[in-house]
Order: sequence, then structure tokens, then C-alpha cells
Amino acid sequence: MVAMGDRGRESGRDRDRIVNLSDGVFAIAITLLILDIRVPDMPENLVTTELPTALLALWPKYLGYFLSFVGISTFWMIHQSIFRPIRAYDRVLLYLNFLFLMVVAFVPFPTSLLGEYGNHQLPVVIYAATLAVGRLLLTAIHWYSTRDGRLLDEAQDPGTVRFFLIRGFIPAIFLLSIGVSFFSVGAAIWTWFIMLAVDAIILRRRMSH
Amino acid sequence: MVAMGDRGRESGRDRDRIVNLSDGVFAIAITLLILDIRVPDMPENLVTTELPTALLALWPKYLGYFLSFVGISTFWMIHQSIFRPIRAYDRVLLYLNFLFLMVVAFVPFPTSLLGEYGNHQLPVVIYAATLAVGRLLLTAIHWYSTRDGRLLDEAQDPGTVRFFLIRGFIPAIFLLSIGVSFFSVGAAIWTWFIMLAVDAIILRRRMSH
Amino acid sequence: MVAMGDRGRESGRDRDRIVNLSDGVFAIAITLLILDIRVPDMPENLVTTELPTALLALWPKYLGYFLSFVGISTFWMIHQSIFRPIRAYDRVLLYLNFLFLMVVAFVPFPTSLLGEYGNHQLPVVIYAATLAVGRLLLTAIHWYSTRDGRLLDEAQDPGTVRFFLIRGFIPAIFLLSIGVSFFSVGAAIWTWFIMLAVDAIILRRRMSH
Amino acid sequence: MVAMGDRGRESGRDRDRIVNLSDGVFAIAITLLILDIRVPDMPENLVTTELPTALLALWPKYLGYFLSFVGISTFWMIHQSIFRPIRAYDRVLLYLNFLFLMVVAFVPFPTSLLGEYGNHQLPVVIYAATLAVGRLLLTAIHWYSTRDGRLLDEAQDPGTVRFFLIRGFIPAIFLLSIGVSFFSVGAAIWTWFIMLAVDAIILRRRMSH
Repeated sequence: MVAMGDRGRESGRDRDRIVNLSDGVFAIAITLLILDIRVPDMPENLVTTELPTALLALWPKYLGYFLSFVGISTFWMIHQSIFRPIRAYDRVLLYLNFLFLMVVAFVPFPTSLLGEYGNHQLPVVIYAATLAVGRLLLTAIHWYSTRDGRLLDEAQDPGTVRFFLIRGFIPAIFLLSIGVSFFSVGAAIWTWFIMLAVDAIILRRRMSH
Repeated sequence: MVAMGDRGRESGRDRDRIVNLSDGVFAIAITLLILDIRVPDMPENLVTTELPTALLALWPKYLGYFLSFVGISTFWMIHQSIFRPIRAYDRVLLYLNFLFLMVVAFVPFPTSLLGEYGNHQLPVVIYAATLAVGRLLLTAIHWYSTRDGRLLDEAQDPGTVRFFLIRGFIPAIFLLSIGVSFFSVGAAIWTWFIMLAVDAIILRRRMSH
Repeated sequence: MVAMGDRGRESGRDRDRIVNLSDGVFAIAITLLILDIRVPDMPENLVTTELPTALLALWPKYLGYFLSFVGISTFWMIHQSIFRPIRAYDRVLLYLNFLFLMVVAFVPFPTSLLGEYGNHQLPVVIYAATLAVGRLLLTAIHWYSTRDGRLLDEAQDPGTVRFFLIRGFIPAIFLLSIGVSFFSVGAAIWTWFIMLAVDAIILRRRMSH
Repeated sequence: MVAMGDRGRESGRDRDRIVNLSDGVFAIAITLLILDIRVPDMPENLVTTELPTALLALWPKYLGYFLSFVGISTFWMIHQSIFRPIRAYDRVLLYLNFLFLMVVAFVPFPTSLLGEYGNHQLPVVIYAATLAVGRLLLTAIHWYSTRDGRLLDEAQDPGTVRFFLIRGFIPAIFLLSIGVSFFSVGAAIWTWFIMLAVDAIILRRRMSH
């Protein structure tokens, strides 16, 4: 029994290391986003008259910062709910998690693209696709980890499983926004805000149960 | 009772993950500040005569580095005192904390603005507003977490609550400095140093009790 | 006995600090890689026609991002298996680990070189040499930590030792790729993909035992 | 007694948060150093002939990377030995630690200065002064934490105290190197390597006891 206890702590400790590494990548990815917002350059005698306009003109950058901060935060919240019951892991879970982290660490690039050329379709499509792939990988990690309960410390109740199932469909809205972008780039960006609201409502419902 | 103990550890572990993520953002935000101080570029034959002047001319950058380092460190110290008694969290606490981290990760931008155009009013106002919003969000997190003691492991004594209440008024000094900036930009920056001193005195008093 | 228990926890705690620092360096190194992929600059009226081509032209950068992300992830997975049984450390282990972290933190530079001049031999050689040195240092850390079992909490079974011994030969493939690069730079890069596959197969075998 | 145990865990947990934040700053500072080594820019047709020379010409940057990596690693090793016996902290310890972290996070700037203008005296003086201040702050933290044993879990043996006392004189070598730099900039840089060797010998002696 002591041995069992020890092994339990063992895998617990390993799990902690994946979680710590993931949290490191999350923390750096959301903090690096600010490096993309550069202070506008102008001659000293024009600062008083032109700085306000120049700062306002950066609004696509602020929007990108906000969207990606919320996007990665949402990734974190889902990642955290998925890993809470996980007590052990295997090679496949490690690979899926690294693939997911590769997407998280990639987010600053489409964000920068969106901040620079946000009124064009291609950046909007790339941005939506990146976040959709991240969400799909989270769904894959959840599906894999609950497959036969081998990696969890106890079976999840059907409510939780259903909750993740419903949430797993949210990336579809990202894909939808790619369709919308063929008609209107602005409307596609608005779709993401709708998705955030839907996400929050689903989470609220779940929490109040 | 074993179940209770387990649940206690569960939420303790979740709390640790929020705290770790927050510490990651704090650590990166204070370390990224240095990237804004760039080595001046000059031809090799002028280095001996011009490097000293060029390095001294960077003083607004050093001031910004110092102010933001102290500002974020103060955020951390308050965050740490607020989260010490927290044992569980809910959706609202998560949202408030992410909103706060969004401000922490944003600080390098107004710092860069202040280092570039610190003798103008707008950068000073934006800088003061950013730090004030950060402090107000910390006050909101503290207020929410102690609201009904549901998230704490034990009720806080009235002294602690009063201490945070008094500290919660410090952002008002930031807002005051915005008012001051309409008359003198330099005086507004000096207000922040006064605030740091007030902060340290309040903390000293609190600690000696 | 209490003292012994305390000392055990002591060294466990110290070990955690090395592991945390290492995970910090891993997390930052893989997340900084994205800073090397810069959004192409072009006049607004050419975006629709030229952005797709400009983004596709960045493919050596994407390849470098992918290769280094996988390379550092593999470093992490090996590092994690090596440190799992380690319970205490000494000065030599600390030095070896810092030397290894110096290589991990260095990876973004050869990656950037490869993304810029990947069709030339020198960048390919430097990249392969960096990853080979990293792998060799991991082999050295493993060899040192298992030398006399003094730093482990229990002796490793011969299967595990053999597994690491076999894995220790993989850097040889990196060195081989340097030889290949004298004939074909493209072929040398392909060698790395073969190595990744070999790595995954060895790991799979090991895990299924 | 339960209350005592709880308080003990409390301060242990708080201590962990300072240590984690510090490790975050250490990890980021050593990993950011690489951002200062930029891939040289040249037209495609000159790469074969000029890239080797251009990469060799970056040697002051590699030297700076190596020196600062070793410098910050040494900071970490000393920080870790100082904090190992610390179980509680107070306001002064927090302030000293933040002041020290401000120096750690600052290191990339003098490193960049040294890599750019390392054959001039001023960068060498600034670099030596930065590392000396860091070491002095570590000595201050150690002195403060052991002052009356209030913050430690047990009194330190005289050997350990003497070890730190001797080590506390090493910054004097940095200050000496500033004196040397008035006669020869190159000799001043060599002084640092001598200091590293002295440091390693002192540590070796200490460890073998």
C-alpha cells in the first residue's frame, strides 16, 4: 500500500511538470502579445498634436491584443478543467499536449498579422483557423484522457462529459467565421465576440449546476 | 471526512495553478521591461566621446524601468496577500484575475510610451490610468474573495479587512496625478513617488502590528 | 528518523527548484521561437495580391519553428525521464544542467539562422551541431546521475538503463547529418525528420513494455 | 499545535511563491540574452563567402552570452543556497529580493552594451558594476535572513556562515576589475574568468566538507 501511495505521488508529480510547462507557455504567450504594440515614432515638435491620433490609429493592435488575450485565457481555462482529474499520462497525451502548446505559442503571429492587415480576408481566416485548431486539440486531449478512465483518478460524471462535448462544438463557430469572412471581414471578427459570449454562457450554466 | 480532505486538496491545487500562471505573467512582465532600453547606435570612432552622453540621455527609459518594476512588484505583493487565504475560486474570480493579468501584461506599453515621450501629458495620463486600473482590479478581487468568506479557508480579522480597505484608496492618488498632469507633467510623475512612500508606510504599519 | 525525513524533503524541494528553473527555460525558449517569424511589410494596396505569396515565402521560418519546437520538446521529454528518479543533486549535476540549459536557450539563434539561410551548408551544420550537443549533455546528465545511484531514490532497472543507452546514440544521427550536408543540404534536413521518427519508435517500444 | 502546523505550512507556501517568482525572473533573464545575438543580414549571393566571417565577427556577442549566462546561473546557485533554510519572510526580505531581481532583469542591457562596445572602458565598468551590485544584494539578503535566525527553520552552523562570509568578498573582485579597466579593458574582462574559477574552487571546497 505504501508502494501504491508512492506511485500515486510519482505520477502526480509528473503530471505537475507537464502542467507547469504548459502554464509557462500560456504565461509567456499572453505576455509576449504586448511586444507587437510598438510606440509610434514621431519628431518631438509634433508629439502634442499627433500622438493622440497615432495612438488611436493603433486600435487594430489593441483589438488583437484583447482577442488573443481572451483566446489564450479561454484555452487555459479549458486546459485546466481537462487536466484537473488527470493523474497520470502516457506518450500520446504528451504528444497531443505539445501539439496544442505549439498552437498556443504560435498565436502571437496570426495576432500580429491581424493587427497589421485586419481589414483583409486572409489574416482573418488564418487567425480563426489557428484558434479553431487549438480548440480542436483541446477537444482531442479531453476525449483521449477520458477514453477509458485509465488516466483519471475517478470516472467523470455524465454531466461533465456532456459539458465538454457541447463545448467541443465551439470551434465550429470559428470555422463558421471563416465562411462569413468570404462575405464580410468585419462580420467575421464580430462572430468571435458572439462566440466568447456563448462560451461564457455555457460556462456559467455549468458552474451554477 | 477523507472525501472532504481530498476536496480541500483539490481546490488547493487549482488555486496553485492560477497563482502559478499569475506569477509567470508577473515575472515575464517585469523582465520584458528591459527590452525597451536599447543600446545606442554610433560609429566606432565616436564611442569614447559620445557613449557617456548617449547613455545618460536614456534616463527617461531608466526611470520608466524603475517605476514599472516597482509598480508590478507592488501589484505582486498585494496579489500575494489577497490570494494567501484563498482556498477555492469560482468563475468570477477567474475572470477578474485574467482581467487584472491583462493589465499587468499591458504595463510595458505605457512604460515604453513614458520612456519615449515622458515630458508630454498624454503618456503620463495613460501610465497613471493603467496602474490605477490594475490597483482597482486588485481591490475588486479582494472585495469579491472576502464577500462572504466562501472562498477563504477562514474569516479574515477586521484589522486585515480595514488594511485592504485603506490600501484600496491608493489608486485615488494615481487618479489625482492625472489631475496634476494638467498643470505640470513633472509634478504628476513626482506624485507617484509620494504614493510609493505612502504605500510603504501603510505596509510597515500593518506589518508591525 | 524525523531528521532523515526532513532531509529527504529538503533535497526533494531543492530538486524541484532546478526542475522549475529548467521548465522555465524550456517554456520560454519554445515560445520565443515565434518572435523570429515577422509579419511581412507591404503597402496597403498590394496586400490582397501579394500577402499570400509573402506568407508562403516564409516557409523556411515555419519549418525552423516546427523543427525547433519538436527538438526542444524532445529535450524536455528526455530531461523529464532523467530527472524523475533523481531525488538529490550535487555541484556537478547542477553544472551539467546549466550547461544543457545554455544550449536550450541558444536554440533560437541557429533556428533563426536556418530560417534565413537554410539552403546553405553552414547554418545546417550549426543547427545540427547545437541539437547534437544538447542531446550529448542530456546523455552526460543521465550517465552522471545513475553512476552510483547516490542521487536516485532507487536503483534503475537494467531495461531503463539500456533504453537510455540506445537513446544516447541518437545524437550520432545529428553528426551524420553534418556529414550528409557536405553532399546535399536538403538531404541533411531530411535526416532530422528520419531521426524524429526513430526517436518516436524507440519511445513507443519503451512505453509499451 | 494544529494551528502552529498550519502557520508553518502557510509561511512555507508564501516562501514558495517568492522563490517561484524569482526563478521565473532568472529563467527569463537567461533566455532573453539570446535575443541580442541577431543573424547578420547579407545579400543571397554573398552568403557562401561572407557568412562564416560575419558569424565569427559576432564573437563579442557570444562572449557576452556566455558570461551573463554563467553570471546569472551563479546568482541562482547562491540565491538557492540562501533561501534553502528560509521558512518565513518579512517586508524587508521581500524588498531586498525585489531589488536583487531588478538587477537580474537588468543584466541583458549591460550584456548588450558589452557585446556592442566591449573594447571600450565604460561598458566594461557598467557590466562589472551591475554584477557586483547583484552579488552585494545577495550578501545583504543572506546577512538579513540569518541575522537573528527568526526567518530560518534552524540556526545555521558556523561553517556555513563562514562560507557565505568568504563568498561575500567575491564582488570585491568585480570592483577590482573596474580598477583594472583603467589600464586595460581586455585584462578587466580576464579578471572575471579568474573570479569564476575562484568561485568554483570555493564552492568545491565547501561541497567536499
